[in-house]
Amino acid sequence: MYQSDKLHEECGVFGLYRRGDTADGVISETYHALYALQHRGQESCGMAINRDGVISCHKDVGLVTEFFTKDRMERMSEGQMAIGHCRYGSQISLNRENAQPLLVNHLKGAMALCHNGVLTNAAELRAQYELSGAIFHTTSDIEVIAYAITQQRLKLGSIEEAVRAAMGVIEGAYSMLIMSATKMIAVRDPHGFRPLCMGRLGDDVVFASETCALDAIGARFVRDILPGEMVVVNRRGVEVYPPIRAEGSGLCVFEFVYFARPDSVVDGVSVHQSRVEAGRILARNHPVEADVVIGAPDSGLDAALGYSYESGIPYGIGLIKNKYIGRTFIQPTQNQRADSVRIKLNAVTATVRDKRVVLVDDSIVRGTTSARVVRILREAGAKEVHVMFSSPPFRYNCYFGTDIESEETLIANQHTKEEICQIIGADSIGFLPLEAVDELTCGVKIPLCRGCFTGEYPIAPPKSTAKHKFEIPLNPEGKEKQS
Amino acid sequence: MYQSDKLHEECGVFGLYRRGDTADGVISETYHALYALQHRGQESCGMAINRDGVISCHKDVGLVTEFFTKDRMERMSEGQMAIGHCRYGSQISLNRENAQPLLVNHLKGAMALCHNGVLTNAAELRAQYELSGAIFHTTSDIEVIAYAITQQRLKLGSIEEAVRAAMGVIEGAYSMLIMSATKMIAVRDPHGFRPLCMGRLGDDVVFASETCALDAIGARFVRDILPGEMVVVNRRGVEVYPPIRAEGSGLCVFEFVYFARPDSVVDGVSVHQSRVEAGRILARNHPVEADVVIGAPDSGLDAALGYSYESGIPYGIGLIKNKYIGRTFIQPTQNQRADSVRIKLNAVTATVRDKRVVLVDDSIVRGTTSARVVRILREAGAKEVHVMFSSPPFRYNCYFGTDIESEETLIANQHTKEEICQIIGADSIGFLPLEAVDELTCGVKIPLCRGCFTGEYPIAPPKSTAKHKFEIPLNPEGKEKQS
Amino acid sequence: MYQSDKLHEECGVFGLYRRGDTADGVISETYHALYALQHRGQESCGMAINRDGVISCHKDVGLVTEFFTKDRMERMSEGQMAIGHCRYGSQISLNRENAQPLLVNHLKGAMALCHNGVLTNAAELRAQYELSGAIFHTTSDIEVIAYAITQQRLKLGSIEEAVRAAMGVIEGAYSMLIMSATKMIAVRDPHGFRPLCMGRLGDDVVFASETCALDAIGARFVRDILPGEMVVVNRRGVEVYPPIRAEGSGLCVFEFVYFARPDSVVDGVSVHQSRVEAGRILARNHPVEADVVIGAPDSGLDAALGYSYESGIPYGIGLIKNKYIGRTFIQPTQNQRADSVRIKLNAVTATVRDKRVVLVDDSIVRGTTSARVVRILREAGAKEVHVMFSSPPFRYNCYFGTDIESEETLIANQHTKEEICQIIGADSIGFLPLEAVDELTCGVKIPLCRGCFTGEYPIAPPKSTAKHKFEIPLNPEGKEKQS
Amino acid sequence: MYQSDKLHEECGVFGLYRRGDTADGVISETYHALYALQHRGQESCGMAINRDGVISCHKDVGLVTEFFTKDRMERMSEGQMAIGHCRYGSQISLNRENAQPLLVNHLKGAMALCHNGVLTNAAELRAQYELSGAIFHTTSDIEVIAYAITQQRLKLGSIEEAVRAAMGVIEGAYSMLIMSATKMIAVRDPHGFRPLCMGRLGDDVVFASETCALDAIGARFVRDILPGEMVVVNRRGVEVYPPIRAEGSGLCVFEFVYFARPDSVVDGVSVHQSRVEAGRILARNHPVEADVVIGAPDSGLDAALGYSYESGIPYGIGLIKNKYIGRTFIQPTQNQRADSVRIKLNAVTATVRDKRVVLVDDSIVRGTTSARVVRILREAGAKEVHVMFSSPPFRYNCYFGTDIESEETLIANQHTKEEICQIIGADSIGFLPLEAVDELTCGVKIPLCRGCFTGEYPIAPPKSTAKHKFEIPLNPEGKEKQS
Repeated sequence: MYQSDKLHEECGVFGLYRRGDTADGVISETYHALYALQHRGQESCGMAINRDGVISCHKDVGLVTEFFTKDRMERMSEGQMAIGHCRYGSQISLNRENAQPLLVNHLKGAMALCHNGVLTNAAELRAQYELSGAIFHTTSDIEVIAYAITQQRLKLGSIEEAVRAAMGVIEGAYSMLIMSATKMIAVRDPHGFRPLCMGRLGDDVVFASETCALDAIGARFVRDILPGEMVVVNRRGVEVYPPIRAEGSGLCVFEFVYFARPDSVVDGVSVHQSRVEAGRILARNHPVEADVVIGAPDSGLDAALGYSYESGIPYGIGLIKNKYIGRTFIQPTQNQRADSVRIKLNAVTATVRDKRVVLVDDSIVRGTTSARVVRILREAGAKEVHVMFSSPPFRYNCYFGTDIESEETLIANQHTKEEICQIIGADSIGFLPLEAVDELTCGVKIPLCRGCFTGEYPIAPPKSTAKHKFEIPLNPEGKEKQS
Repeated sequence: MYQSDKLHEECGVFGLYRRGDTADGVISETYHALYALQHRGQESCGMAINRDGVISCHKDVGLVTEFFTKDRMERMSEGQMAIGHCRYGSQISLNRENAQPLLVNHLKGAMALCHNGVLTNAAELRAQYELSGAIFHTTSDIEVIAYAITQQRLKLGSIEEAVRAAMGVIEGAYSMLIMSATKMIAVRDPHGFRPLCMGRLGDDVVFASETCALDAIGARFVRDILPGEMVVVNRRGVEVYPPIRAEGSGLCVFEFVYFARPDSVVDGVSVHQSRVEAGRILARNHPVEADVVIGAPDSGLDAALGYSYESGIPYGIGLIKNKYIGRTFIQPTQNQRADSVRIKLNAVTATVRDKRVVLVDDSIVRGTTSARVVRILREAGAKEVHVMFSSPPFRYNCYFGTDIESEETLIANQHTKEEICQIIGADSIGFLPLEAVDELTCGVKIPLCRGCFTGEYPIAPPKSTAKHKFEIPLNPEGKEKQS
Repeated sequence: MYQSDKLHEECGVFGLYRRGDTADGVISETYHALYALQHRGQESCGMAINRDGVISCHKDVGLVTEFFTKDRMERMSEGQMAIGHCRYGSQISLNRENAQPLLVNHLKGAMALCHNGVLTNAAELRAQYELSGAIFHTTSDIEVIAYAITQQRLKLGSIEEAVRAAMGVIEGAYSMLIMSATKMIAVRDPHGFRPLCMGRLGDDVVFASETCALDAIGARFVRDILPGEMVVVNRRGVEVYPPIRAEGSGLCVFEFVYFARPDSVVDGVSVHQSRVEAGRILARNHPVEADVVIGAPDSGLDAALGYSYESGIPYGIGLIKNKYIGRTFIQPTQNQRADSVRIKLNAVTATVRDKRVVLVDDSIVRGTTSARVVRILREAGAKEVHVMFSSPPFRYNCYFGTDIESEETLIANQHTKEEICQIIGADSIGFLPLEAVDELTCGVKIPLCRGCFTGEYPIAPPKSTAKHKFEIPLNPEGKEKQS
Repeated sequence: MYQSDKLHEECGVFGLYRRGDTADGVISETYHALYALQHRGQESCGMAINRDGVISCHKDVGLVTEFFTKDRMERMSEGQMAIGHCRYGSQISLNRENAQPLLVNHLKGAMALCHNGVLTNAAELRAQYELSGAIFHTTSDIEVIAYAITQQRLKLGSIEEAVRAAMGVIEGAYSMLIMSATKMIAVRDPHGFRPLCMGRLGDDVVFASETCALDAIGARFVRDILPGEMVVVNRRGVEVYPPIRAEGSGLCVFEFVYFARPDSVVDGVSVHQSRVEAGRILARNHPVEADVVIGAPDSGLDAALGYSYESGIPYGIGLIKNKYIGRTFIQPTQNQRADSVRIKLNAVTATVRDKRVVLVDDSIVRGTTSARVVRILREAGAKEVHVMFSSPPFRYNCYFGTDIESEETLIANQHTKEEICQIIGADSIGFLPLEAVDELTCGVKIPLCRGCFTGEYPIAPPKSTAKHKFEIPLNPEGKEKQS
C-alpha cells in the first residue's frame, strides 16, 4: 500500500457542456470536479476550454491545486464547454507533452480529447499512420486516437460519425471525451473497462469518471454511459448512439477494490458497499480468532468494517495515515533512520497492544509495504497479525490501464500464499476467492475483467512491447539505418 | 470539521541534539518529524540548524513539504543540533517574519527559539522592554520571550539560569525549545497547557510536541516534560531542573478532543483511547435509537467508534473526505454552484440512506459546517440525524493557544442546546457533559484546563487587547503625537 | 527604439555536433551560444539534446537565463548533439507549444527541428497536409516544415534527400537546423533571407545564426552557409550539398541595420562597419550644422559614429539606457506620471544642453518613441534636434520574418518625410537613400531584400491571411458546419 | 569591469512623501525609481509603504523586476508615503533578513529605515546595546542605527530630535531615509560620503540617491542634501535642519568614476562630464600614438570619449557587451571551453584589427578581467593595446561602502605600474594621477575621499574586524563559555 507499492490507475476525465447563455463558471466547475477526481491521477492535469468555438488548453505536471492557481485561473478565458483530465503517468511518459487534454487542429478544425484507459493496438495504429506520413509529438495513446478519428473524418460527414467509425479501429480500454468547436462527445469502449457517467447541473450536461465528481459540483447523476455507447451533446440537445457491445467481460475489478472513491457509485454499484461485501466474503472464507479488525487506510477501511460485521470481531482504528501526502514529500534515503512507511502510517498502540489483530488491505503488489506494516503492528504490541486482502492474488500484467512494472515484480506471481505469509511476517493471510469476484457487484450483473488474476484477457494483449522509436539509440556500428 | 469552521492550534515544536560525532542527517530527521507534526500548524514552518556553534535559520510560510524542497535542503548546511517548528497563524500575523524558529543575537551570542502556546502578559512585557529601548521586529510572543531571557542573561551566569529566571517573568502557555551555540533547552510552562515530550534516537536526544513525531523518525519515547520542568542537553549529558508547579488546572482538553493525532500519547494518555472514551460517555449520556453511527472525518472517527461500542449500534463509514487538502485549494465563491463543504466531504449513500444516523463530531464552533453536513446526510437519504459532540459546548475565549475569532462567533456562546439543534437541522444533539471531562484522561490524573467551557481560567486573561502599535493609524486631526 | 516601438526579428538558431567521444558540455555550450543570440528573440527558448540517438527537448517561454536554471540544466541529460533556439513571438502565437525546437516522431524515428524565418506558403501546405489526414498541434511554420520533410522521407532513402526535396516544396525565409538520431543538417533558404554560419570548436561542428555565438563559446568561424545550401554532419564527417539558388534578392537589410549584433559578421560583412557606413552615407546626404552627434542606444550608436566621422561634428554620449531590461519590467500605465520611454532612456544634460544635436537612430516604425525622445532631448536643453535614420523609410509589410502589426501602423506608410518631421517634433530628419542600400554591404556583393521599403518582394506574398482554424468561432446561427 | 572583478557599491535609496490627498501610485512611483537605481545594488530590494500611519514592508533578494512582480504589487496596499531600497550584499550577509528597508516597532511606534553606506563604529555600538539587553536579528548596520535612534527617542520628544542626536553617536558613511507613522526624514552623514538629493513631483517630496531616479518618474530636481544635513517632511511641510559638518574630505571619488549613472548629477557635477574630464586628463598625462580609442562598456565609454577629444585619436566602438545580464546567468566552469569574459564582452574586429588601440577602463581591481580583455583585443587583431584607467591605482581598503574582498587581492596593492602592465599583457598602461583627482569635479568644490588610493581616511577605520557572534563556533574543548 501507500504510494509506490500500490497499483496505479491511469486517469480521470470530466466534461461540462453549458446549455445556458452565459460563459461563466465553466473553469471553476471543472476545477472542483477534477479536484474530486484527483485520486485517479496525481501526476498531471489539464483543461481545454471552448469559448465560442475557439478552444484553449492549459495543462502541466502537478496536482490540480498546484497547477491551477488562482492567478492562472483568472488569466484563463471562460467558455461554454470544457473537458478536464487528471492522470497518472509511468516514469517514462511523465512529462508535460503527455498531459491531457490533447488539443489538435485537423482539416475540420480544432478538437480536444482526453481519455481514461490504454489501447492494445496503439503501436500497430501508430506504425500504420506513420506510413501515411503522420507525425507524432507525444508517446500517448490519445494522439493515436486523434489520428484514428481524423482519418475517418476525411471520409465521413460529421465528427460523431468519425468517432463512431474510429471505435471500430481502436482496441482496448477507453472512456473518453471529445470536444469540437460545437459539440461534446462521450464514449466508452465496448467492454467498458473504465467507468464513465453522465449528470445534469441545471440544464447543463456533465460527464465524469466517477459520481463523486458530480456530487462535488452539485450535479445530479443521470446514468452511466454503457459500454460501447456514444453520447453527443450540441445546441440541439443530447443524442445517444446505441452501444456497440463486445464479447466477454469488461469492467476492471479494481475500480471497486481500490481505484474509485468509496462514495462513488460505479455502474450501479456503491463502491463502499462493494468493499464491505468483500470484507464479509473474506470473513466467511478466512475466519480467524482475533480481538480486533483494523483496515489499512484508506482503501482497506471499508472491507475491514465488512469483516468485522460478518465475524463479530470488533472494528478498531489501528493505523493512522499522515494526511499531508503530496508529490513533493521527500522520502528518507536508505541510510537515514527514518522509515518511509512509518512516516506515512503509524500504529495506534492502544488499539493493537496485546491484541490478536486482523488487518484488512485491498491487495498485495510487491509485498514490501505489507511486510513493513505487519512489523509496525508487532512493534506496537500486536500478539498476532492476520492479513486479509480484499482481492484475489494479483498475478498477471494488466493491459487496460492498471500500471505495474512487470509481472515478475508481483509477489503473487512469484510466490505461493504460504510463502507470501512468511515473507510479510503475518500469522496467516487470506485472499478474496477468485470465484467470489462476481459478488463484489452486490447483485448487479456486470461482467468483470479479472485478467490480472487469471492471465486470461477479454482482448488479446498488445503484440509488440511498444518500445517506441523515440528511444532507439544511435547505432554504435555506424550503420545509421536510422534516418 | 473542515477547515475554516475549526479550532486552530498554535504550533508544533521539535528538537534534536546529536550526541555522536557526525553532523549528518539532522536536517532530514527534523524534516520528517515536522512532517509528522504538520497537523499542529500548516501555515508556516522552519528549522534552525546548529553547525559547530553557528546557527542558520530557514523558514517561510507554507507546508513543510512545500518550503523544504529537495533543492533547498541540499543547499542547507548540516549540523549537530536543530530545532524545528510548524505553526498556525491568525490572518493578522501570517507572514514570513512571524514564522519560527526565531534566531537572534544578544550579548552572549546566538540563540534560536520556538514555542507552542500564547503568553498572557506579552503586551505588558513588550511595553516594559520598549521602555528600556527595545526594538521589536515581529508581533510574535517568541520575540518577547527572547527579550525576557536576554534580560536575565545579563545578570546571570548561564543561559539555563536565564531561562529558568525568565519563567518567573513570562506568563501563559508555552512549550518551548531554545538552542544556543552549545546547548538545547526544553521548557514547559508551569501549568503544562501544551504537550512536550522527550525521546532518544540512539544516543541522540529529541524533543517533540507529540509522540507521533518520535515514531516517525524511529525514536524511542522516554517521558513527557512535566509542567514547569526544564531539561538541558549539552555535551556532558542531560540535566533536569525540577518542575516549578503552578496552582490549578493546565493541559488543554482539546489536545485530546481534536488537536493531537490519535496515534500520539499525551501525558500518558492515548489520544485515540481518550476519544473512544468520549464516544462511550456520549452514548451513555445521550442514547438514541439509531441504525448506524458515523464519524465526521478525521477527528470524529474515534469517538464514533466509542459510541458504537457502548451503544451497540453498528459503526459505519458515512462521510468521505477528499484527501488532497492543501493551502492552495481555491474555495468556490458565493455565486458558484459548487459547495465548499461538499467538495471536501461527501456522504456515502449506501451507508446512510433510509437510516437513522448518529453523527459524532469533536466540537461545534460557528455551526455553519455542522448544518451543512446534516443537510448532506439528509440529501443522501438519512431518515434521522443525531449529532453528538465529543466535548462540552465551546462557549468562551481561549487565551492559551486555541485560536477563535471572538466569543460572539461561537454558536454555543449565543444559543442554547435546543436552539443549536434547530439551527443545524439535527433531530437531536448531545454534548459531552462538563463533569465528564476528567474521564477523558482514562484514569490518568491530569488537571485539565476547561476555560473555554466555563470562562474560568487557570491564569488571568490578558488585560489589554494587545492591539499593537504596528497598526495604529495616522491621527486624522493632524496632531501627530505618533512620532 | 526601445522595445514595443521596434521591429522584431523572429529567431536565432544554434547547433553543435560533437565529434569526439565524450557526451559532455553540449548543454553548457548550447546555453552560452543561445545567450549570445538572445537579442534575436527574447520570448521563448529551447534545446533538443541527442544522447546516443535518443532526443530530449526542453523549452518554454522566457529568456535563456530564466528558463535554463542551474537546477534544470543539472537534471537534463547530456548528449553528443544539440540544437537550440530563441524566438520572438507575436502575441497570438506566444505560448509554450510554439516554442522551438520541435521534437517529433515519424516513420523513420525522432527528429528535432528549429528555424529562423517565415514560410510564405505555410497556409497552403497546411491545408494540403490536413487533406491527407494530418493533425497539427501548433500554429508554427516549423510543424509544416516537419510534415514537408516527413512526406518526402516516405519516398526517399535518407533524411538529407528528404530535406533537399522539401526545399522544393516550402517557400519563404528559413535558416534551419534539423537533428535526427544520427545526423545534423543545416539549411538556408534559396534567397538566404536570414543568416546562418558554420564554425569549428576543436573537432566539433557548430552552426549559428550569427558569428557572435561562435565567439561566445570560443569556436572558430569557418564560413557562411550559402543561400540554398545544405550541410550534413554525421559520424563520417561534413557533407555539403551545392546551393539551390533562387532568382532575385535575398538577405534582409535589417540584419545589418538593426537585428544582428555589431560584433557579428554576416555573409562576410561586419555589422558594425555596415552601420558606420550607413552613418557616413547619411552625413553626406543629410548634412546639418550641429554641435554634437549622438546615437540612440544601442543600435544607433555605430551609425552615429559614422555620421560623426564623415561630418566632423563631435560624437557625444547623449542618451543613457537603463540596462536592467527584461520581460518582467512593468510599464507605467497611462494615468501614472512615470514615462515608459524616459524610464528606459534618459538624456545626458551635459552633452546636449544648449547644443544643436544630431540624433542617429536605426529606423522609424510607429514614430511614437522618436517623438518622445526628441522631447526628452529638448527638455534637457537641446537647441535643435535633427534625427537621422540609418535606413530608408519602412513603408510595407515584411513577409520574411520581420514582425510588424500592419502596414497602416507604419508612420512612413501614412506620412511624407515632412509630416514625419513635424509629428516627431524634429528640426529636420533624414533617411538613408534607397539607392544607397547596396552600400551597406561595404563592397561585398550580396543581393539584399528591400521589400519593406519598396513593396516589391523577391517571393510572392502569402495569398491567404492565414487566419487559422483554431480561431473559427462557433456559428451563432446553429448551422454547425464546423464538426 | 564585468561583474565579479568590479567594485561594488552598497546601495540606492528612494523616498516619496505624497502631500496630496490620494493614496495612489506610491508603489508604482517607488518601483520605477528603484528600477532607475538598480545599478547601485542588484542583490536585494524592498519597499516600506505607509498607509494612514500603518507601515507594511516587502523585501527579498533579487532584482526590482524579479521581486516586484505585477501580482505582488497588486496585492500590496497603497499608501501616502514609501521608502525603497536596492542593495549589494557581500556573500556573508546576502540573505532576506539583511534586505532593507528595516521595519521595527519601538516604544513610540513603527519606524522603517534604509540607508546607503557603512558605519565604522557599528561593532562598538552593537556591543554597547547588547550590554543593555538588546537583541539583534540581522548583521546589518541599519539595525544598529535603529537602536541608536530608539535610544535617543526614549529621552527626546520627537523622532527628528532623536535622529539628530543619533547622528552624534553613529560614525561612518550613511545617506539614509527614515519613515515614521507621520514623517519622512532624510539624512546624510557629516562627511557626505554617499550622494542624496531631493526633488519635487508636483506637490510631493521625493528623495533619491541619484538624480536619474528623479528623471525616471518625472520629478524635478530641487537640490542635494548637504553633508550633515537633515530634512524632515510632514503634513505641515518640509523642515531643514542645518548641516553638522565634519572635518576633512567626504564624497567618494568612485561615485564619479564608476558607481553613479552618467546621466546623474551628483553634488552639482555631471557624472558624464566628470568622466569625459578624466579621459582628457589621461590623454594629457599618458599620450600614446594610436589609431583608435575604445571604452570598456559601460563605465569606460565616457572617459574614452574624453581621451579621444583631447588626443585627437578617433573614438571607436571596439567592445560589445551582452545586454542580457542578470543574476541568473550561469558562468561557465573552469573545464568548459566557454570563457566567462568573452561571453559578456566581445571585440568588434572591424574596429580593432591591425590597429593600435587605446582601451579606457574605469579602474583595475584584481586585474584578471583586464588581462582577459587585452587578450580578446589582440585575438581580434589589435596591433597594440594601451590601457588607461580613469582613476588612480586602487590600493587600500575602503570602509565607507565600497566592497572589496581584501587589500591583498588588489593588484595595485601588490604590484608596481610596470608589473601590472606586464601582468595584463598591455603595451602600456596609464592611471589618473592622484593629484588630478580634484579636477574630476569639473570646477565644483567638493572635498573628495581618496582613502582607497592613499590609505589615509577622513574617519578612523573600524577597530575590530567585526567578526560577529553569529559565527563563533562551538568550543571544541567543551568549555562552553558561549551561551
